[in-house]
Amino acid sequence: AVSAPAMAAEPQVKWKLASSFPKSLDTIYGAAETLANRVAQITEGKFQIRVYAGGELVPGLQVMDAVQQGTVECGHTCSYYYVGKNKAFAFDTSMPFGLTARQQNAWMYFGGGLQLMRELFKEYNIMQFPGGNTGTQMGGWFRDEIKSLAELKGKKMRIPGIGGEIMARLGAVPQTIAGGDIYPALEKGTIDAAEWVGPYDDEKLGFYKVAKNYYYPGWWEPGPQVSFYVNLDQWNKLPKEFQAAFEVAAAEANLVMLSEYDAKNPAALVRLLGNGVKLRQYPADILAAAEAEAFKLYDEEAEKNPKFKKIYVEWLKFRKLQHGWHAIADSTLERVMYTPKKAPAKK
Amino acid sequence: AVSAPAMAAEPQVKWKLASSFPKSLDTIYGAAETLANRVAQITEGKFQIRVYAGGELVPGLQVMDAVQQGTVECGHTCSYYYVGKNKAFAFDTSMPFGLTARQQNAWMYFGGGLQLMRELFKEYNIMQFPGGNTGTQMGGWFRDEIKSLAELKGKKMRIPGIGGEIMARLGAVPQTIAGGDIYPALEKGTIDAAEWVGPYDDEKLGFYKVAKNYYYPGWWEPGPQVSFYVNLDQWNKLPKEFQAAFEVAAAEANLVMLSEYDAKNPAALVRLLGNGVKLRQYPADILAAAEAEAFKLYDEEAEKNPKFKKIYVEWLKFRKLQHGWHAIADSTLERVMYTPKKAPAKK
Repeated sequence: AVSAPAMAAEPQVKWKLASSFPKSLDTIYGAAETLANRVAQITEGKFQIRVYAGGELVPGLQVMDAVQQGTVECGHTCSYYYVGKNKAFAFDTSMPFGLTARQQNAWMYFGGGLQLMRELFKEYNIMQFPGGNTGTQMGGWFRDEIKSLAELKGKKMRIPGIGGEIMARLGAVPQTIAGGDIYPALEKGTIDAAEWVGPYDDEKLGFYKVAKNYYYPGWWEPGPQVSFYVNLDQWNKLPKEFQAAFEVAAAEANLVMLSEYDAKNPAALVRLLGNGVKLRQYPADILAAAEAEAFKLYDEEAEKNPKFKKIYVEWLKFRKLQHGWHAIADSTLERVMYTPKKAPAKK
Repeated sequence: AVSAPAMAAEPQVKWKLASSFPKSLDTIYGAAETLANRVAQITEGKFQIRVYAGGELVPGLQVMDAVQQGTVECGHTCSYYYVGKNKAFAFDTSMPFGLTARQQNAWMYFGGGLQLMRELFKEYNIMQFPGGNTGTQMGGWFRDEIKSLAELKGKKMRIPGIGGEIMARLGAVPQTIAGGDIYPALEKGTIDAAEWVGPYDDEKLGFYKVAKNYYYPGWWEPGPQVSFYVNLDQWNKLPKEFQAAFEVAAAEANLVMLSEYDAKNPAALVRLLGNGVKLRQYPADILAAAEAEAFKLYDEEAEKNPKFKKIYVEWLKFRKLQHGWHAIADSTLERVMYTPKKAPAKK
């Protein structure tokens, strides 16, 4: 190997990255480390990014403001945390009954999604990059079994964002509670249910010890994307090759995070089942009502929010085409493979 | 932006890449261009890779030999083309009823797949990187409808590799025919059926004009990976930062190719249906027999091929865990979303 030149020809660029996530959620937090390490590697250390966990520099849910104001040059966060600014930000993460991880990537990179979202982000002086995905999440932990839509009424559930709004339309009582406070609330019965991510992350938080009914699917998050945010002034100051280094490293982090969750979730699910967890599918009437309410909510929002409407109209067309195709080859073969087989007759 | 230094501090590295694919298959061929462009960008042009289409330097199915012998420094190909050397190479691409695209990535990057495969490739003086995926392919074009396993018997079908071996066990007569020769054979009735990739690529080859029955799913290719091959001597001579540049660009190409197919296939399918194509699911008895024969074939191969067995044992464990998890959240939500909904009652 050729050694690095004694003096770097370019100026050293040092950035701070504010993550929304704690180090304990190693897979989602780790995607920012993946990016930082790769950028340093391919620029021979000339472009260095230091990653700060949620709360270290700024609170986890204020990463967008910090990047916008230039407190940090970049961040790693979920855009649906910022639906209070505009509900349209949720398209950058996940919409209930929306796109799967693969479909989200197809929309972002080749379906016009990245351009549409960047128009919105530009108003906040930010450029964003897909930077991770969890895959379809689980539907949460319930103290009691829920057999029908009627039984959901009045249940206090920790579920933030648009998913929470839809739950409210179904008669549940959504609660917004930070990660660390969920367990005691669930244990005491202050809440009846809580959703988090999926087997690997949920296992760490220990919910299975106090609520045994683990529901699926997490219909409010078919393929949640995590995004890297970059302050636009900082981006424009960056040499072209450093821009390219950031962009390619973000794409790798996007792929790697999903692959890591996919590799870790299955064994975690097996362990949870070994601890007495009951896996339960949401009753059909809940799923049907939730899907209908989701699209009512989107239609209502589009009526009053032109920025939401602009993205929604394109997203809806893309979603329809995607669902028409993925239902055919991928989804059919998966169903065939996942159907338990009778043991072959002994010869 | 800072301008590039007048004199590059490192030596210029120029590589040739032999692709197995013609330029006309723009998405799969394009993944190598994606890699080459990105590597040049992030190294400020110091590491340049020139992409040659299949047949330009070496025949499409001899890329492995060319990389092994150092005729070219690197290549872009499907490892299951080389099952004649060892059937174990198929694990690097796709096994019938095996892993989906996401599961293949999880296995490669976090499930030990990359290490296992690299042990095998090392014997051929090659290091390989996942470098693209098509997603689950379609099950091919049939001149006549096939209503049962019995009707498959004697049918001449263009289908290479292990998929073809399984088809033979089901009573069909597999044929190996190069891409350009399939259409006339199908038109004349020399063959009864042919499989290729999916809607976007298949449409270009025009099969729908001479065979109207488009079957799904392509059970022999749940998530075919395309791989970048690098000659090991050349890899070891590469500066560390160029190795990192190649590796990150390969990961991006892997993600981008799948996203591009996912974005292009849905509209192509709609166009095909508009041209009178009949979409048909493989009858249940064919799918069940094919799955059973696939695992019989793997078990038989493992008995006589220790290199195959070593990978197969690990792959089988990984597959079982994956299928246990993906059947839950992702697959269930997809099924719910893809089920046609009754129009809501007018208020």
